[in-house]
Amino acid sequence: MQVIPPALQKLIDQLARLPGIGRKTATRLALIILRKPPTLARELAEALIELHGSIQLCSCCFSFSEKDPCGICGDPRRQGDTICVVEQSADLMAIEKTDSFRGHYHILHGVISPMDGIGPDEIKIRELLARVRNGTIQEVIIATSSTVPGEVTASYLIDILQAEPIRLTRLACGIPMGMDIKYADKYTLAKAIEARSVAR
Amino acid sequence: MQVIPPALQKLIDQLARLPGIGRKTATRLALIILRKPPTLARELAEALIELHGSIQLCSCCFSFSEKDPCGICGDPRRQGDTICVVEQSADLMAIEKTDSFRGHYHILHGVISPMDGIGPDEIKIRELLARVRNGTIQEVIIATSSTVPGEVTASYLIDILQAEPIRLTRLACGIPMGMDIKYADKYTLAKAIEARSVAR
Repeated sequence: MQVIPPALQKLIDQLARLPGIGRKTATRLALIILRKPPTLARELAEALIELHGSIQLCSCCFSFSEKDPCGICGDPRRQGDTICVVEQSADLMAIEKTDSFRGHYHILHGVISPMDGIGPDEIKIRELLARVRNGTIQEVIIATSSTVPGEVTASYLIDILQAEPIRLTRLACGIPMGMDIKYADKYTLAKAIEARSVAR
Repeated sequence: MQVIPPALQKLIDQLARLPGIGRKTATRLALIILRKPPTLARELAEALIELHGSIQLCSCCFSFSEKDPCGICGDPRRQGDTICVVEQSADLMAIEKTDSFRGHYHILHGVISPMDGIGPDEIKIRELLARVRNGTIQEVIIATSSTVPGEVTASYLIDILQAEPIRLTRLACGIPMGMDIKYADKYTLAKAIEARSVAR
């Protein structure tokens, strides 16, 4: 007995292919889209169709961009001698929102994760090394996540970059702003104690 | 400074229009779609475009269907004298999955919710009354959710249907299967005690 119309089932199947969206969420979203006016489905479809057509990877930092070099690499007002190394474009967006970094980026497009078969050659590490060896870079900020694969990747980057004549830094670890100390997990708290700074 | 390419921003905006998807989730999904091969975006777009074209409301039970009457209303093996009244198509799908109901449905397409300006005339109640008065219905099972608007809707349905010569029933309320009693909320537990049945 076919309860779900094929066109609805097809949309559910397509939505369920996205990571983080299970069959229940896919069904809920598909039914919402079906209940809304057809313009919503059409506009979403248009955005999907246009997506890959106009976006490419910046050949310098590997961020997604409509131009090459991207808006950041091509902006003369930004400090080209400082590179912030991040895992994904989403990290770049998060850092840009803070308005506290004026340098360039380097998107690795992943992390080293031997369990998943991802070694240093699978992500943009060779390209980072080439940028650093090009000679104009003064500082590389390693801004990988504070997760196990993020830390592994950071260690690897430190290993291969420490011989280069640059300043090599990492983001600070500690208590998040506005967090009550009693709710901080013990590893974060230990890190915050270890990395404590002079108050005045 | 434009960090997010316009085509990506457009997809994020479109995804964020879906209820339950905030800007962070929309950004995450859009970046996932961008990192995947373009076929995924294209196939999802196609599913969206085909969605409204082939699906309509069944003129009898108001479920989404490619045919009118829908597969359930048009199936002679199902019991046409029993109607299960649900809020949304998702409820119908959930009940169908149990394989324990062989009657017909009636989709209200909403619940009575005066706070949101939704009265009895905004949902398919008039149509339900017409089906009941048509004379062949023996039983109406009210299967609205156990939420405040669901209960309000159920009460209203009981009010207008109790004068009709039909059996009027509701889904049982009680402890979910497999749940430890000590974790059940007190309202559910009270309902379960009140509606207790003879053990043998």
